[in-house]
Amino acid sequence: MSDTIQAAFYHGDRTFAVKDTQAQQPDAGEVAIRIAYCGICGTDMHVFHGNMDARVGFNRIIGHEMSGVVSAVGADVDHVTVGQKAVVRPLAHCGDCPACDAGHMHICHNLKFLGLDTDGAMQEIWTVPAYTVHTLPDDMRLDHAALIEPVAVACHDVRMAELQPGEDVLVIGGGPIGMLCAMAAREAGGKVTISEVNQARLAIAEKLGFETINPKETDPAAAINEKTGGKGADVVFEVSGTQPGVDTMTACAASRGRIVMVAIHAVKPQIDMFQFFWRELKLIGARVYEPADYEKAIALVASGAVDADTVITDVSPLADIQSAFEALDQSPTALKSLIKVGETL
Amino acid sequence: MSDTIQAAFYHGDRTFAVKDTQAQQPDAGEVAIRIAYCGICGTDMHVFHGNMDARVGFNRIIGHEMSGVVSAVGADVDHVTVGQKAVVRPLAHCGDCPACDAGHMHICHNLKFLGLDTDGAMQEIWTVPAYTVHTLPDDMRLDHAALIEPVAVACHDVRMAELQPGEDVLVIGGGPIGMLCAMAAREAGGKVTISEVNQARLAIAEKLGFETINPKETDPAAAINEKTGGKGADVVFEVSGTQPGVDTMTACAASRGRIVMVAIHAVKPQIDMFQFFWRELKLIGARVYEPADYEKAIALVASGAVDADTVITDVSPLADIQSAFEALDQSPTALKSLIKVGETL
Repeated sequence: MSDTIQAAFYHGDRTFAVKDTQAQQPDAGEVAIRIAYCGICGTDMHVFHGNMDARVGFNRIIGHEMSGVVSAVGADVDHVTVGQKAVVRPLAHCGDCPACDAGHMHICHNLKFLGLDTDGAMQEIWTVPAYTVHTLPDDMRLDHAALIEPVAVACHDVRMAELQPGEDVLVIGGGPIGMLCAMAAREAGGKVTISEVNQARLAIAEKLGFETINPKETDPAAAINEKTGGKGADVVFEVSGTQPGVDTMTACAASRGRIVMVAIHAVKPQIDMFQFFWRELKLIGARVYEPADYEKAIALVASGAVDADTVITDVSPLADIQSAFEALDQSPTALKSLIKVGETL
Repeated sequence: MSDTIQAAFYHGDRTFAVKDTQAQQPDAGEVAIRIAYCGICGTDMHVFHGNMDARVGFNRIIGHEMSGVVSAVGADVDHVTVGQKAVVRPLAHCGDCPACDAGHMHICHNLKFLGLDTDGAMQEIWTVPAYTVHTLPDDMRLDHAALIEPVAVACHDVRMAELQPGEDVLVIGGGPIGMLCAMAAREAGGKVTISEVNQARLAIAEKLGFETINPKETDPAAAINEKTGGKGADVVFEVSGTQPGVDTMTACAASRGRIVMVAIHAVKPQIDMFQFFWRELKLIGARVYEPADYEKAIALVASGAVDADTVITDVSPLADIQSAFEALDQSPTALKSLIKVGETL
């Protein structure tokens, strides 16, 4: 493999520069992956907007929703071989904090997120700790595989909800993660309704076969109660990150219902604690994923339970990363934009 | 037994009248109990303040934290016999709503609370559905037994928390329920700290052997982190019903910590949802109790794990109910006031 590769550097001020750089050779315990595709995450868009400059700096290669092919392995790596298709679970834990001690390495107190706190996947070759690498079936399409990271978020959310087959599910917010939560919940046997205000996203949700509510037109609690004989939703995923979404979650949950907090609320919302008491609701915070969620996500993409072709609404070459971010930022209809980072064959 | 009994009627405007009334004879499936003691609950104080007039009306016998001796049983009652000491789990469910269908009768959508929605225990003989009656060991003191209802609340809270031996516990709010939560959590093996601003209550907590924090003097998060090596509290009971209490609960919880919402927040507080996401916290709404919680509470009072003599700070005869409510309303040091309703021998 060539040592000189192309990479996209975030330089601040909504600007990326695609430049030559040197590929990092894998040390012991590391794996180098030739990147095929890298999706643009909501977090990447926050970087683009300058909201994370203090964390990522002004010479950072971002990106973590990736797929690729293993190009080199360092010493002491035995579960990965050159030529295998692979994705990376982009979390590096410290191994020495109370969360790690308790076995919750994905919420390590000193967690590093690869592609934010370190350089990421918007480069032709990405070198990562071997323990972050999950290998893929040989016949998986690598564009589809770029969805595995966000699908793993959804799988974690569904697992945290302890969703049982036949339960009524409400997903509040039909963006990419909401849509993937809906698919993962349906695959787990849930009867899923999506609440969303954006007409384009409502149309996609309906195309994907979900019942929908537009809370600008219909009271969600009335609609869910009618659908469930007055019971309410057994599981609610709050993916909107808004005060109306938080109001909807408590209004729609069944007695002993579980509400999974998927959204990141930067502002503290007002929450109806009386309803938590009255109906013995549970609120479950969920963050990223654990290895089992990655394996489940790989299975969901492989089986087609996640309709990847509907979720992926745009693919751009690495050279066009600047315009891809600008277009996604303006688009009311896009779900997931991928960057085709390089050739893997 | 005499048919004419004494009862205290709430007549609105912070007023009780103690008058003669007729004891209700038990119908089939009912049990009549000669009441020994009845504690004054925070909810009873809300009634006294006029906050529940629309619900209870102006000719209501309130009271539900009671103890007594079975004086008569109706037909078709086989688990209770005359002469047994007994307490009542004051919940009447409809049997025909989604919560009842799911087996959660204690949060029935049409739940009637005996002593609020029906006449209660501030009368010499109280007649109730037999399924609400739990019998007591013969040697249990009936003043102590009047604590079983609030102890059952605490037992429910601890059970909902899935508290494990050795876990670090923070109780926010050292009123009667907070103190009972602390005792129930300690009995379950928790290492309990109580956060409270009232000096008299702090003194009681310390007398009961608990570590304490006064958040007016010490930052609770710093104190809990120091105590737990930076981990935080595995289980938090929010019993304060205040915005500062809600801020403390998220600041002090460990990664994957469970926060039990015991307090009734009439106003929607602002809650740090980011912390729920970041540490994968769980918020667990808890309301009243189930039969198993009553049996556990009976065992805790019987064993002395609940220090009844410290919790009971006042006993007044039924004739003095008016002054007992007025005194409790003004007292900074009282925990639990009992009314001695009648003689049981």
